[in-house]
Amino acid sequence: MALIVQKYGGTSVGSVERIFNVARRVAGCARSGNAVAVVVSAMGDTTDDLLALARSVSEKPPERETAMLLTTGEQVSAALLAMALDKLGCPACSFTGPQAGILTDGVPLDARIRAFNPVKVRQALEEGKVAVVAGFQGADPDGLLNTLGRGGSDTTAVALAAALGADLCEIYTDVDGVYTVDPRLVPAAGKMDFISYDEMLEMASLGAKVLHPRAVDCGRAHGVVIHVRSSFNEETGTLVKEDTALETGTVVRGIACDTDQAKIAIIGVPDRPGIAARIFSAIGQRGINVDLIVQSIRRNGENDILFTVRADDVDKTLAVVKPVADEVGARDVCVHRGVAKVSVIGAGMMHHSGVAASMFEALASEGINIEIISTSEIRISCLIDETRVQDAARAIHRKFGLGNDRQ
Amino acid sequence: MALIVQKYGGTSVGSVERIFNVARRVAGCARSGNAVAVVVSAMGDTTDDLLALARSVSEKPPERETAMLLTTGEQVSAALLAMALDKLGCPACSFTGPQAGILTDGVPLDARIRAFNPVKVRQALEEGKVAVVAGFQGADPDGLLNTLGRGGSDTTAVALAAALGADLCEIYTDVDGVYTVDPRLVPAAGKMDFISYDEMLEMASLGAKVLHPRAVDCGRAHGVVIHVRSSFNEETGTLVKEDTALETGTVVRGIACDTDQAKIAIIGVPDRPGIAARIFSAIGQRGINVDLIVQSIRRNGENDILFTVRADDVDKTLAVVKPVADEVGARDVCVHRGVAKVSVIGAGMMHHSGVAASMFEALASEGINIEIISTSEIRISCLIDETRVQDAARAIHRKFGLGNDRQ
Repeated sequence: MALIVQKYGGTSVGSVERIFNVARRVAGCARSGNAVAVVVSAMGDTTDDLLALARSVSEKPPERETAMLLTTGEQVSAALLAMALDKLGCPACSFTGPQAGILTDGVPLDARIRAFNPVKVRQALEEGKVAVVAGFQGADPDGLLNTLGRGGSDTTAVALAAALGADLCEIYTDVDGVYTVDPRLVPAAGKMDFISYDEMLEMASLGAKVLHPRAVDCGRAHGVVIHVRSSFNEETGTLVKEDTALETGTVVRGIACDTDQAKIAIIGVPDRPGIAARIFSAIGQRGINVDLIVQSIRRNGENDILFTVRADDVDKTLAVVKPVADEVGARDVCVHRGVAKVSVIGAGMMHHSGVAASMFEALASEGINIEIISTSEIRISCLIDETRVQDAARAIHRKFGLGNDRQ
Repeated sequence: MALIVQKYGGTSVGSVERIFNVARRVAGCARSGNAVAVVVSAMGDTTDDLLALARSVSEKPPERETAMLLTTGEQVSAALLAMALDKLGCPACSFTGPQAGILTDGVPLDARIRAFNPVKVRQALEEGKVAVVAGFQGADPDGLLNTLGRGGSDTTAVALAAALGADLCEIYTDVDGVYTVDPRLVPAAGKMDFISYDEMLEMASLGAKVLHPRAVDCGRAHGVVIHVRSSFNEETGTLVKEDTALETGTVVRGIACDTDQAKIAIIGVPDRPGIAARIFSAIGQRGINVDLIVQSIRRNGENDILFTVRADDVDKTLAVVKPVADEVGARDVCVHRGVAKVSVIGAGMMHHSGVAASMFEALASEGINIEIISTSEIRISCLIDETRVQDAARAIHRKFGLGNDRQ
């Protein structure tokens, strides 16, 4: 008998019929002799509908109240799934995040999990019941409801698996697993049987939207084996786990493409110490994530500072950057939205040279210009023109012989 | 400055527009210098919609999960009202029943309030905020969500007023107050300025659907002054409070009519001790409320036992009664649905004779036959033919000179 945590997203529980599909899968797993805890998202578009309702009351509803409103979505789907399991003769009971023991840090709409003490979940499992937990939510020490922000239900599931000491955390989604590259871009893409936490973290952060980085990070911290798989079939997906074979022959494991990028250039910044620090601390204080940064082109004692942010964050960023740029005497601030980031990822990369060179060759062979380059130990990213993403992904995939491009 | 608890029902918060109407009224009360706590029901038909959703999953969903599902309805309206108040510049925060400190007894869908310790509500009021509390719900000592059953939001409001030591509990509804009789039946009906708890309890139990008996009972136990009034205008409604003027000139205060009744007759019951007890304890164990009971007509050592139940409960009742009737050798069980109960109510009645005689005269003058009579200290009820309810109500209203029939 294994202790398994399963997570189903909003699409998987989007209707009563689909809830029964999920219930049948959960009941099957329980009947095979496993103890099963299930984490669910809100049904289909519920969260968006609730947000729209809030906005119809106020353009800027208080975050505390928005969290109060949104948490009802997962509570509903958890209750309905428990009812469906009961109907199939599989004993079950549902829990809100707070009831399940999730203690959060008090940030209403983007809370972190501070502690997870799943007393009642464990009790339900010991009584032979399936425990259904509302994802995406918890309560702060004062008892106020918080939501966990983006990817919150994935994080709930992995954190629950860690807290229970589960054998496995299965993340059910609408794709078959993690691919070497987005199959819509590169038909030769292949599903990976496993991927390390570090690699998955880079893949997830860089726009492979299968599993949220926070969940991967939580899994890595607690050694939770995560199985990313489809809720529409019985195929094995991709295991996310510790990299046990350090000397794997494959250096590059996958490619991530992110078109949700914009480049901001601050032109003609005086070359004095501390200016970059002022700009980026101002941006950081607004909670905006800056990705690639380049400060290099000196001309007449002036620098140009280039960096990328998420396309959604451009307006917020400009509101912060422009006053600082004026203040330090920069000549101009420009925005370019038509860019994309293509990255190669692989834990073996740190022990192999020549990966960057191969990537640049692949791009050059297609005549693709590289605007910014950024590297980490297990990743190399290039900012390119958005219109050339598919060409770039295909060329790189071929170059490294990934997926069905393997020779 | 007064401490006021207000309660708004589902119709009053049935749309975003109506939520703003409520918010304006609440904000006005707060701006007049009062501390205000508000209890809300779920928006419009939300509870029915959620129940329908549950039934689409299972004909008999587990009660624990149904409570989990239903409590989201009030949580949504509480959050939205707090948002609307914030939008109007009136600081507010919402609470679920458990957050507000309502401890229930663990009956999932028909819980009683065991304790109410409104620490957080009081704290919000002290911070100058309006506290918005989700009605109809609480948590048992194990943290499980319970709903309070019928009239739950009224009860939440009155119990909150008692726990806070509020000066007043205003129940906003879609009628102007408590009338001497249903104005749809008797155009001469008059609004009462005040009514005692006991009288209101009889009015409420007997089919005047303005304020739930549980809420009245709670108000009586804790001396909470309840103001029943309309959410659509600014008129004064009816105060429900302790009867201070015992020697009031008015003996009969109001008339209640209940057409939601059915009569069940067990024919030819052997005249042996203990048989009635067996029948009514079997019914009681199923949670069915029996109202009028008559056991009187002796024939050849046999009795007929007649009693009334709510029309909805007929099938449940027969399922219990028929086996017992067979067992004790009764000859038949008959159901008659076309009956109604007409009652006169007045706390002064216990000190005055002749009220029953006047009521019977009024009915006789219209040629209305009385099937069963039942009396309490402050009430006289007659079971009559359902088709004659309006005639009966008008005749009695006139006879006692109530409302606009006063001479």
